[in-house]
Amino acid sequence: MFDINDFGGIIYGADYNPEQWPREVWREDAQLMREAGVNLVSLGIFSWAHLEPQPDTYDFSWLDEVMDLLHEHGVGVNLATATASPPPWLSLKYPDSRPVTVDGVRLEVGGRQLYCPSHQAFRTQARQLITQIAQRYQGHPALKLWHVNNEYGCHIDQCFCGLCAEEFRLWLQERYGTLDALNTAWGTAFWSQRYGAWAEIQPPRRAPTYANPTQQLDWRRFSSDNLLSLYRMEASILREISPQTPITTNFLGFLPGLDYFKWAQEEDVVSLDAYPDPSSSRPHLEAGMTFDIMRSLRGGQRWILMEQATSAVNWRERNTLKRPGLMRLLNHQALAHGANGLMFFQWRASRAGAEKFHSGMVQHVGPQRSRVWQEVQALGQELKSLTELTQARVPARVAIMFDWNSWWALEIDSKPAALKLMPLVQKWYAALRQLGQNVDFVHPEGNLTAYDVVALPNQYLLSHAAAQNVRQFVNGGGTLATGFFSGIVDEHEHIQLGGYPALISDVLGLWVEEWLVMQPGETNQVQLRENGATYDVHHWAEVIHVTGAETVATFQQDFIAGQPAITSHRFGAGHAYYLGGDFPEAAVIDLLEEILTHANVPLSRLPATLNVTLSDLGNAQVLHLLNVHSTESLDVSLPDGGSRFEDGGSLPKVLTLPPYGVALVRYSRDVRLDELQVLE
Amino acid sequence: MFDINDFGGIIYGADYNPEQWPREVWREDAQLMREAGVNLVSLGIFSWAHLEPQPDTYDFSWLDEVMDLLHEHGVGVNLATATASPPPWLSLKYPDSRPVTVDGVRLEVGGRQLYCPSHQAFRTQARQLITQIAQRYQGHPALKLWHVNNEYGCHIDQCFCGLCAEEFRLWLQERYGTLDALNTAWGTAFWSQRYGAWAEIQPPRRAPTYANPTQQLDWRRFSSDNLLSLYRMEASILREISPQTPITTNFLGFLPGLDYFKWAQEEDVVSLDAYPDPSSSRPHLEAGMTFDIMRSLRGGQRWILMEQATSAVNWRERNTLKRPGLMRLLNHQALAHGANGLMFFQWRASRAGAEKFHSGMVQHVGPQRSRVWQEVQALGQELKSLTELTQARVPARVAIMFDWNSWWALEIDSKPAALKLMPLVQKWYAALRQLGQNVDFVHPEGNLTAYDVVALPNQYLLSHAAAQNVRQFVNGGGTLATGFFSGIVDEHEHIQLGGYPALISDVLGLWVEEWLVMQPGETNQVQLRENGATYDVHHWAEVIHVTGAETVATFQQDFIAGQPAITSHRFGAGHAYYLGGDFPEAAVIDLLEEILTHANVPLSRLPATLNVTLSDLGNAQVLHLLNVHSTESLDVSLPDGGSRFEDGGSLPKVLTLPPYGVALVRYSRDVRLDELQVLE
Amino acid sequence: MFDINDFGGIIYGADYNPEQWPREVWREDAQLMREAGVNLVSLGIFSWAHLEPQPDTYDFSWLDEVMDLLHEHGVGVNLATATASPPPWLSLKYPDSRPVTVDGVRLEVGGRQLYCPSHQAFRTQARQLITQIAQRYQGHPALKLWHVNNEYGCHIDQCFCGLCAEEFRLWLQERYGTLDALNTAWGTAFWSQRYGAWAEIQPPRRAPTYANPTQQLDWRRFSSDNLLSLYRMEASILREISPQTPITTNFLGFLPGLDYFKWAQEEDVVSLDAYPDPSSSRPHLEAGMTFDIMRSLRGGQRWILMEQATSAVNWRERNTLKRPGLMRLLNHQALAHGANGLMFFQWRASRAGAEKFHSGMVQHVGPQRSRVWQEVQALGQELKSLTELTQARVPARVAIMFDWNSWWALEIDSKPAALKLMPLVQKWYAALRQLGQNVDFVHPEGNLTAYDVVALPNQYLLSHAAAQNVRQFVNGGGTLATGFFSGIVDEHEHIQLGGYPALISDVLGLWVEEWLVMQPGETNQVQLRENGATYDVHHWAEVIHVTGAETVATFQQDFIAGQPAITSHRFGAGHAYYLGGDFPEAAVIDLLEEILTHANVPLSRLPATLNVTLSDLGNAQVLHLLNVHSTESLDVSLPDGGSRFEDGGSLPKVLTLPPYGVALVRYSRDVRLDELQVLE
Repeated sequence: MFDINDFGGIIYGADYNPEQWPREVWREDAQLMREAGVNLVSLGIFSWAHLEPQPDTYDFSWLDEVMDLLHEHGVGVNLATATASPPPWLSLKYPDSRPVTVDGVRLEVGGRQLYCPSHQAFRTQARQLITQIAQRYQGHPALKLWHVNNEYGCHIDQCFCGLCAEEFRLWLQERYGTLDALNTAWGTAFWSQRYGAWAEIQPPRRAPTYANPTQQLDWRRFSSDNLLSLYRMEASILREISPQTPITTNFLGFLPGLDYFKWAQEEDVVSLDAYPDPSSSRPHLEAGMTFDIMRSLRGGQRWILMEQATSAVNWRERNTLKRPGLMRLLNHQALAHGANGLMFFQWRASRAGAEKFHSGMVQHVGPQRSRVWQEVQALGQELKSLTELTQARVPARVAIMFDWNSWWALEIDSKPAALKLMPLVQKWYAALRQLGQNVDFVHPEGNLTAYDVVALPNQYLLSHAAAQNVRQFVNGGGTLATGFFSGIVDEHEHIQLGGYPALISDVLGLWVEEWLVMQPGETNQVQLRENGATYDVHHWAEVIHVTGAETVATFQQDFIAGQPAITSHRFGAGHAYYLGGDFPEAAVIDLLEEILTHANVPLSRLPATLNVTLSDLGNAQVLHLLNVHSTESLDVSLPDGGSRFEDGGSLPKVLTLPPYGVALVRYSRDVRLDELQVLE
Repeated sequence: MFDINDFGGIIYGADYNPEQWPREVWREDAQLMREAGVNLVSLGIFSWAHLEPQPDTYDFSWLDEVMDLLHEHGVGVNLATATASPPPWLSLKYPDSRPVTVDGVRLEVGGRQLYCPSHQAFRTQARQLITQIAQRYQGHPALKLWHVNNEYGCHIDQCFCGLCAEEFRLWLQERYGTLDALNTAWGTAFWSQRYGAWAEIQPPRRAPTYANPTQQLDWRRFSSDNLLSLYRMEASILREISPQTPITTNFLGFLPGLDYFKWAQEEDVVSLDAYPDPSSSRPHLEAGMTFDIMRSLRGGQRWILMEQATSAVNWRERNTLKRPGLMRLLNHQALAHGANGLMFFQWRASRAGAEKFHSGMVQHVGPQRSRVWQEVQALGQELKSLTELTQARVPARVAIMFDWNSWWALEIDSKPAALKLMPLVQKWYAALRQLGQNVDFVHPEGNLTAYDVVALPNQYLLSHAAAQNVRQFVNGGGTLATGFFSGIVDEHEHIQLGGYPALISDVLGLWVEEWLVMQPGETNQVQLRENGATYDVHHWAEVIHVTGAETVATFQQDFIAGQPAITSHRFGAGHAYYLGGDFPEAAVIDLLEEILTHANVPLSRLPATLNVTLSDLGNAQVLHLLNVHSTESLDVSLPDGGSRFEDGGSLPKVLTLPPYGVALVRYSRDVRLDELQVLE
Repeated sequence: MFDINDFGGIIYGADYNPEQWPREVWREDAQLMREAGVNLVSLGIFSWAHLEPQPDTYDFSWLDEVMDLLHEHGVGVNLATATASPPPWLSLKYPDSRPVTVDGVRLEVGGRQLYCPSHQAFRTQARQLITQIAQRYQGHPALKLWHVNNEYGCHIDQCFCGLCAEEFRLWLQERYGTLDALNTAWGTAFWSQRYGAWAEIQPPRRAPTYANPTQQLDWRRFSSDNLLSLYRMEASILREISPQTPITTNFLGFLPGLDYFKWAQEEDVVSLDAYPDPSSSRPHLEAGMTFDIMRSLRGGQRWILMEQATSAVNWRERNTLKRPGLMRLLNHQALAHGANGLMFFQWRASRAGAEKFHSGMVQHVGPQRSRVWQEVQALGQELKSLTELTQARVPARVAIMFDWNSWWALEIDSKPAALKLMPLVQKWYAALRQLGQNVDFVHPEGNLTAYDVVALPNQYLLSHAAAQNVRQFVNGGGTLATGFFSGIVDEHEHIQLGGYPALISDVLGLWVEEWLVMQPGETNQVQLRENGATYDVHHWAEVIHVTGAETVATFQQDFIAGQPAITSHRFGAGHAYYLGGDFPEAAVIDLLEEILTHANVPLSRLPATLNVTLSDLGNAQVLHLLNVHSTESLDVSLPDGGSRFEDGGSLPKVLTLPPYGVALVRYSRDVRLDELQVLE
């Protein structure tokens, strides 16, 4: 059976859509793939209409030919279930298989992903198609991996139709058992919402005003689970017919709609579609976060970068291309963060359709004339010297707590302020990366004991079990760094009374009375007691009462002047810090540096343009150094004893990384990050 | 029968929702209420689902218990009809009882206020419920007041369903009698809109382009009346079964949807839900305006502040809390402006549901730990010394003309510019308040003779009757201050031809030929002839021709340079001023100061941070002084002869008001505002 | 038969809606029209409900009376088919005659233009009405012109109902013949969109994500054609019954929805409704562009300005009036650009309805009191001296290529960046005007040989035929000036592979590899090799490889520094220039000046405030000089030998044009633009 860590090298390839091209191009494709070092392509993702041009009439001849051709050229296949986009005949035959928006608009044919996951005839047709595919190709020598559906929940993560309403009711019956339990959980005593029959319950469609928040939360949970049940149906066929071939479905990073912690448990390997915006000031941070959560979903298992752009995409307002060198840099970053596969969407840029302006490995100008082709071909060659990386672990001493449930809950309406979770997580992640840390993401009820420090940029919803998990972690010696507005509600989205965050008030040694939400332009300042350093606070500050915690910093303005802003509390064998306001990134870096230092976590304060990862080969360690600046070089003073990873060659003490430059340094000893120095 | 002026003190309390809490909390609630001085709570507003858990099956046991418990603790009840939010079973049983948006989306269960006011089964169920409640509690000793429904029109002020279309047609038949009359009134000769049958008429649903403006205006009138007919149905049951207990329904200030001048005539006492934004630069002005219109709706009768937040609300983008002192300040302001009741939403902040982040008298932290509790308890005590205020009048010599019809008409599309009424009214109101004036709001067809000066910031729609009313007022010696774009259309929204504002052109001594709408950034200047002072004008300037009026100021730029901008006209025994442009607030203050001075209205030009009201006890007058600044104190030189209101104690000549400070000064003589001085 | 060039003078008039006014006003109207020099009015546009108050019951008596009255007063009639706005009875009788939005909302009665063009009963009713009108008035002496419907596609240019879906399928069958051809053209191999039956095809209604772009493009083509088929039906009745009277329908300039190049071939004379925003900094450029495309649609034939405002309109956010002189100026501009008729909407400003704040010839104040009346009356007199202009040609040596197909295609989603066509066209147009050029618009497959220079600000879609047309033009000696992102796709919206713009890569002597899309705030610079002048480039720059072209300028920054930005290529007997970035207007002027100079096109670099047109009377030429500045005058040094157009009077060498001043100078020789000079 396929092993992500033993593919015979790093996986390299792309989505391949031969049905868009005349047969004469296929052979050229196969030859060019060989030239580029491609060893795996994803095939058939959007082929349903070509495999089943009419209901129950199948045509696999062209796919047979392509499979064979690829195999002849040494290219493996990541074969799709072809269910991602049903053919137009399905929506004509079953008009109610089309999903419905929150406003009741039934969506129309012409795009993709046009299906309601609750529709039985759609499921039946999909089941039948997958069965045919699995039976036909399960023994094919090119087959390496199964690709279930595609980007579940990308466009449609919630369908508000009557069938989904009925599924929602069943899901709720399973969750709550009785209506009484549901009424209690949803707090339906409020606004006369008490349900007397299951049939009265509806999805949170457009309502006169705010829908019940627990209903909204359960609806997000259900919608994720409902797509997951579709995935399960698809995967179960493959597992039955083709048990030797592993299964994946491509994730979309921090996709709002799907709880990937749940999903990842049901596939053999995690794969990711990552499209960081090349025009952002720090695309590597956006990328790195998604890389790290992918690795974290299955406990550190290496993963596949299943889709990325060779250059520009087509779906932003303005799509900046990847300037020379950036594509290679981001792929090296993926490897450093645990990828064992580097694949693109797509092999050959389309001539027609909605994505024709999405770059490919083969561009519209053709390979000979193309800068992009030169870069992807060179990368294909370079990968051959990096095979050993497929065995590396990415050890982290720090984890950020993350949970889709809390994300969903936080962004439901009717909060003290409209908060977005991701900017907070991004800020803390950026700070930890700038301190040189490998970062894991950990589920609130996951195993925290592997870490020295667990950071909660925001954990608005904290289940009772998670609170207990946190308590045990700190009690056992761990260090907790908690951001504002955390631990407010439990799993039912009920306030925990008596002083926030009531469930871990003892751990933090404080209680919060109220929140001082500031308007745009308003500022408070916070001053550290130890050294008098001050930081601005915007948007959010808290009225904190300590009950054992030490006041590390106080607010300087408004009616909370002089009151605690940042605290530290010894609890059991550990420490719990609280940051009671929305601090700018520069402050978060300083504060986390303090916290990590106290927790004896080695760190190095890096310039924003140097991206460092330390991976572990068991018998050696590798320092991955990336200069993420597009025009300026960096001088790095290396820890002693390193050698060039690729060939063991020697390296100067001070290594100059050119713009977008990459260096991998091998150490046969344990390297500490604080041995690294960057020369200004 | 309950008398708003004789409740045995100032009403103090909150909405109380015991169904959200276990029974053991109820007793604690009753004891805490006593502690806080609470004497009235609003009960049952969202209890329909608990009182009638299944269709036609009622359960009053819990409410019986709460009523008795409250009575035992000396707390009266403002008992709701419980119709504000029908239970989910209603929308399952009668799917078409759910209201419909302008786009045809039928709204869904999960929020509140989910009913179409035209739906007969909904009305029947409501009637049946109210009858049960009224019969059961009409003699209960705790019952003090009936609270009909809740915040009519808050979320749904227009329902576009077929039933409402049918009601609309009936309403139109009553209004116009014949289709010919309707066709004339609506001007259907335009765009081929002539109706040949009543059935052809529809609500102004989404159309290819602008719907007929008179249709739009009549639709707003109908929508207000249609909810009013629901109110009437509800109230009539109470009046029949429980004639001894007065009736109110809580208003929402300047709510766009309901013509409160009409509504207020059908209740016994006006009550208000007021949620000024604490983060606005002048929350007291926003509050004061709503207080003053409430008092004006029923000819100066005192009213109840039925809902306000103790601190933060939950429904703005960013919900600023009320900093220490602000809650008390705004309640003193309500008293000064005529409130006899001060109530909060809600007693105990919810644990679950869409409003759990709305503050309560009892906060999530519990009473002992809560700043808010300390403030509401202290206020409850303080009120005991202010009982005499419940007898005060709030005499005004100046009124602002206000009319929902004109507001609706102005904000219909297809105007010379998209104008909003409220900013204009706010500007003039702020100016009058800064000149120390008590301000009434007066309906255009109301009694103007009670005032020295009537101000029309904008009265786009002026009915023939209103024009005659204005003419008589000026002719009889009154002073009229008219803003731009007034008197343009009549009650049918038809232009009055021959030179705007044709119906009062004689009163003003001028006619307006056209409007010079300016773009953002464009400016004209206006210069006063008398003293050469100049003001900027933005957005709007008019081409004015005088026919008797004196030119007070002229425009300085553009093709209207040198032409009249502000005029004054002697008409009969009075004066009519015209301000032919959109002036900034500073200019409006200066101009109104001039106008009031000429009309012999005593005034004092106050700093923006001092809020002054003069109320009248018959045998004494009370000066209410509020420092609305959060951090700076104010020194006020008082008129001679005052004493401390609460206890008759003496006061220094120069009184220092601390930040958010309040002082009430009693005079046994008539005080003139111009005796007051503020020291810089 | 009516001849646009022989109406006995310049057409002058307005829309006339007597049904909005009592009969006593009609006679006054007719007399005032005579006073103002009105010789034509558009009648009956919105009269359907008055002509057919109930289904199949007609009343023409009032129209008879008005027709006769107008004729008595020497006023001709442009008689409408009255189909623009069906009466309310139509939508009650045929609810599905109402159009449907992309979201499935069926629009409601109350506005105008409420019909689905595919609805058979609507068509039948319209046919019947038109037949009645045509039969009744075809011989009437007042009848001069037929006005079909009104502003087709103004509000509703696409209806997404099921009937239109069916028509769309028929249209596609006609276009493609087979489903295979459609599948190929639409590229349905992408995203599993292959159609197996015509019935599966739908309009591009709201979908989960981007609909197929060729589907979108064909939908726009169909929607234009579907309205055109309605026009054809209407016009065919008139042609049959009333063959002596010419036919027009009023266009809306650069209306996105209708391909006027196709439409214009089916009427006898082009007419235009033009509402440039008087508050824009250059309303004359906005106006001039629409004037020029109207003239271009029928090969230089003179046209009628059918609607314009005398002063303000009512439908913008802020509607600035036309300051004194501007109305006259814009009418002179229309004459210079080829108008033979100058008409307003509307004769008398309405009292009621959605357009009552739209100015008219007779304003609300009445004629005696009105500045606007004085201006329109004066213009009516002035026109009498300008009759000879009706014979003039407007010769252009430069044309801008324009095509609705390319416009539609460019603005479909999923592009390298969201580009808007009109700002690009406006920029190039403004540049050419500032160089003194008369400008034609030419269809890509139209006759290019009439021009020295053809400019393509952007021609994203270039059909194979158009590419061949361009090639022949350059090969034959023409000069081509091509903007960025041109020639990317063919008529099916398929990328032309091998290096953009593949179909004319040989003509340009280059190929483009990729596009460097810049974010807001990003800049590159371009430097001319010849003189070192530099220009900023924003938004868009291209990676260009020359294959024969000469590099005129290079980029200065980023990874394309030193690479070609502007090129010139000799091809056959002509030249092809390429501008590979989005240059600011100032740069476009410089570059076009160079290009025109090399092509020996006489030019004069004019100040932005001077608008010059040169028209040709055969035996004489006329220089139209307009000072478009509202407050500053201009001194112009005239070419020798000119005389005052109106009366042959002599003119000073240096002519001073006052603000909004107009001068027409006659030359009995060929004048060259470079003889004109403006003194600073």
